Amino acid sequence: MSWSTFPTLRHLLLLRPRLPKPYPHPLRISSSLSSSSASSRSLSSSSFSSSSHPVPSALTQEYADDAGGSPEPPAAPSSAAGRESSVIDVNPPRGTRDFPPEEMRLRNWLFDNFREVARILSFEEVDFPVLESEALFIRKAGEEITQQLYNFEDKGGRRVVLRPEITPSLARLVIKQGKSASLPLKWFTIGQCWRYERMTRGRRREHYQWNMDIIGVSRVRAEAELIQAIVMLFERLGISSLDVGIRVSSRKVLQAVLQMYAIPDHLFTEVCVIVDKMGKITREEMEKELISTGVSSEAVKGIIEVLSLKSLSKLEEVLGSDNEAVADLKKLFLLAEHYGYSNWISFDASVVRGLAYYTGIVFEAFDREGKLRAICGGGRYDKLLSTFGSDDIPACGFGFGDAVIVELLREKGLVPDLARQADDIVFPLDEELEGPASSIASSLRKRGRSVDLVEDKRLKWVFKHAERINASRLILVGNSEWRRGMVRVKILSTREEYEIKVDELG
Amino acid sequence: MSWSTFPTLRHLLLLRPRLPKPYPHPLRISSSLSSSSASSRSLSSSSFSSSSHPVPSALTQEYADDAGGSPEPPAAPSSAAGRESSVIDVNPPRGTRDFPPEEMRLRNWLFDNFREVARILSFEEVDFPVLESEALFIRKAGEEITQQLYNFEDKGGRRVVLRPEITPSLARLVIKQGKSASLPLKWFTIGQCWRYERMTRGRRREHYQWNMDIIGVSRVRAEAELIQAIVMLFERLGISSLDVGIRVSSRKVLQAVLQMYAIPDHLFTEVCVIVDKMGKITREEMEKELISTGVSSEAVKGIIEVLSLKSLSKLEEVLGSDNEAVADLKKLFLLAEHYGYSNWISFDASVVRGLAYYTGIVFEAFDREGKLRAICGGGRYDKLLSTFGSDDIPACGFGFGDAVIVELLREKGLVPDLARQADDIVFPLDEELEGPASSIASSLRKRGRSVDLVEDKRLKWVFKHAERINASRLILVGNSEWRRGMVRVKILSTREEYEIKVDELG
Repeated sequence: MSWSTFPTLRHLLLLRPRLPKPYPHPLRISSSLSSSSASSRSLSSSSFSSSSHPVPSALTQEYADDAGGSPEPPAAPSSAAGRESSVIDVNPPRGTRDFPPEEMRLRNWLFDNFREVARILSFEEVDFPVLESEALFIRKAGEEITQQLYNFEDKGGRRVVLRPEITPSLARLVIKQGKSASLPLKWFTIGQCWRYERMTRGRRREHYQWNMDIIGVSRVRAEAELIQAIVMLFERLGISSLDVGIRVSSRKVLQAVLQMYAIPDHLFTEVCVIVDKMGKITREEMEKELISTGVSSEAVKGIIEVLSLKSLSKLEEVLGSDNEAVADLKKLFLLAEHYGYSNWISFDASVVRGLAYYTGIVFEAFDREGKLRAICGGGRYDKLLSTFGSDDIPACGFGFGDAVIVELLREKGLVPDLARQADDIVFPLDEELEGPASSIASSLRKRGRSVDLVEDKRLKWVFKHAERINASRLILVGNSEWRRGMVRVKILSTREEYEIKVDELG
Repeated sequence: MSWSTFPTLRHLLLLRPRLPKPYPHPLRISSSLSSSSASSRSLSSSSFSSSSHPVPSALTQEYADDAGGSPEPPAAPSSAAGRESSVIDVNPPRGTRDFPPEEMRLRNWLFDNFREVARILSFEEVDFPVLESEALFIRKAGEEITQQLYNFEDKGGRRVVLRPEITPSLARLVIKQGKSASLPLKWFTIGQCWRYERMTRGRRREHYQWNMDIIGVSRVRAEAELIQAIVMLFERLGISSLDVGIRVSSRKVLQAVLQMYAIPDHLFTEVCVIVDKMGKITREEMEKELISTGVSSEAVKGIIEVLSLKSLSKLEEVLGSDNEAVADLKKLFLLAEHYGYSNWISFDASVVRGLAYYTGIVFEAFDREGKLRAICGGGRYDKLLSTFGSDDIPACGFGFGDAVIVELLREKGLVPDLARQADDIVFPLDEELEGPASSIASSLRKRGRSVDLVEDKRLKWVFKHAERINASRLILVGNSEWRRGMVRVKILSTREEYEIKVDELG
């Protein structure tokens, strides 16, 4: 989430000349359906990316990066009318993605893993409207997420947004369900989130985010469970703790430092949001921003010193062993040993996360090579409900986007071969056999088999098609066999061929 | 999709006094988590509905009906600030739905059935942005769907919409993929669609829609396959052909009538959209609308006469056996016999569907009691691509919403009991056993079991909780057992209890 801090490089990249996109698109869909993931990658490789490595697909393109959307310069009001004769613009709106079948298989594979982890940890799925009231997202801390709201006025004069994140909607539903709810709630959701930047162009404006939240658990157990979910997801995807780590700290560290320097409480959130930019803006810029909030330069020095700590025992030396942050973190690291994921997590005081509402432990997963932005992030937000006028309930959660993870999987060669699959192809060799072919397909389908019924094609095409969709069997309905109540079957893996009675087709 | 045609009744319903909603919401979440579907229905039963029968849940509330959204009068710009002290408005935006766990289980069950049917028919899943260019939906035929666009200008000055339907996006992607695509494409998607009505209030502004489309098949086979998908879905949900029928006709019927009366081709689409209102507006209103397009009153009479035909042989008498509509329909009914779904379908010339782009066979599923609006609808749209400036490819598809079907399932008592499920609950009886409990939960989870780890609760609460989430086993980690490397297990279905070695836990 740090692109805005590299204006020079980024603008250079954005200003490089773009090749016009050919139309009609020369790509054969057939090639993208092949089982080779290498060839399927060619689908959107022509789209521009500001990333330093190839960005081969819709899922890989990051929230923060180029979109594969319309390559025109921005803000031409009639751009939708297309740039080539009278053909409509075939691209989705700037910054958004289509998911053709091969991209959708990848997305489904990823989301299925999200869902399976949630099931294993006994979380319940929930969902909220992608369109929310703007009021839910108006916060004063200068977060990037609230500065880039995709907001507008609806025709009824209401201020609405395409939500930038899901937690406020979740908090809204918790309040709606009432205080008498049987806590804890363990909820997960997978939903699209949006942002809008007015001044830049070609960035992604949407991504999908897996959220898991525990409402009503004040103990560090909640954080420990959430981190187990993240680790389990990585393991399912084939990612090890050599590839990825999870940095953990607590906002209470910063809170203790602010208390040391007698900095007033109301500056806490603002300071957190600024401090989150560490490593993304220069130290001088950060110091300047901190001082502009009213923090003394001595305190700024103290803050930066403490936030550079990477050892929990050093933190304990500085803050004392009765400090809440220290106690929480020690508890979490102890639980991690029991869960068996100690090797994934490390203490890093510089982690504060950029959302205003975190109050306690915060964490983020990162690739150990340091090439990518945070893969996911989360933390405790015990005071969010009171900002909505309700009584507080302890809460904790994380958001896990669909972009960086796929980039990492590509880097590591861990994207599985997700070819199209089918059980049977039924093909009548003669037009008058279309009726029998319908009956055969229908009866196989009733048994739950995935059946593609093909007609009006040459046999050669059908064989190719069978390969392309990885069909197990080809069932040929021919005149001479049909008269005897038989069909011809070809098993595609073994090339075995035989005749069989129609009612013996398994 | 006909509510706008009953202004009197509808406005009476909308104007009836509303009870203020209590806050905090008095409903216990615990009751909504119980396995009784009757009690879970109480969740949103307090929300207003203009329907004549109880509308118990988010999924049941129709696209066309009340929303369960904010009950205030419309267009108060600061309504989001809430109407009770400083508590934020806990409702989702007007006309939208939250999906708490019990609603989400129902939605997932329905969508899983959509997906399973699509798999069985060998369709591939695709997806498109919910936000699209307005240009994709600008059509001149006076369709309801384009008159109620949820459109706005983004900050870059682009005209965009929250899509009202998915077919135009699909057509856009087909064009983008290029003419050399290996046809046919068999695509499905499940996505949210939006509409906005300026003048009315309290209606649903979003619904989810299952779309299945076949691109590149000009034969009636495509229609036959799509109708099989619909029938298969109904059968999976427990709905029989006694509950539901599918009416079939062809736009070519109307085309032939227009030719009889020498009505110019360019009036065809407009006439279709008007004629689709049959039964929703009075005959006089329809005649008036038709005459205002330039159709003679003699032709209007002829149109209405032909559209009242319910028998294919009568149609053949009127149009002749070499008429394309007659040939297509006869073919479809023949194929239906082979597929085995003849009892589901019937010819009804009055079916034209309200979308401008249909060109051939059209169909819609309806409840035989006639209480509900169309459950789903679709047809052939061979000329849509050329309206986007591309060459045409024959195409055919349907949209199946998530509202009417759930209403029907409730009516028929076919909504399954979708209680929360878990395999194990692990509960440490002592705070010092939290570590061992973590290890046990972690190791069960690694085996794929769904495990809820509970602590800081009374044993009584845990037993209740186990019932609530339908856990199979309760694993109690107690001091005396743990010292011997054992845990206490309770099988909740049989009430059987025993001790077992930790590493023998299955």
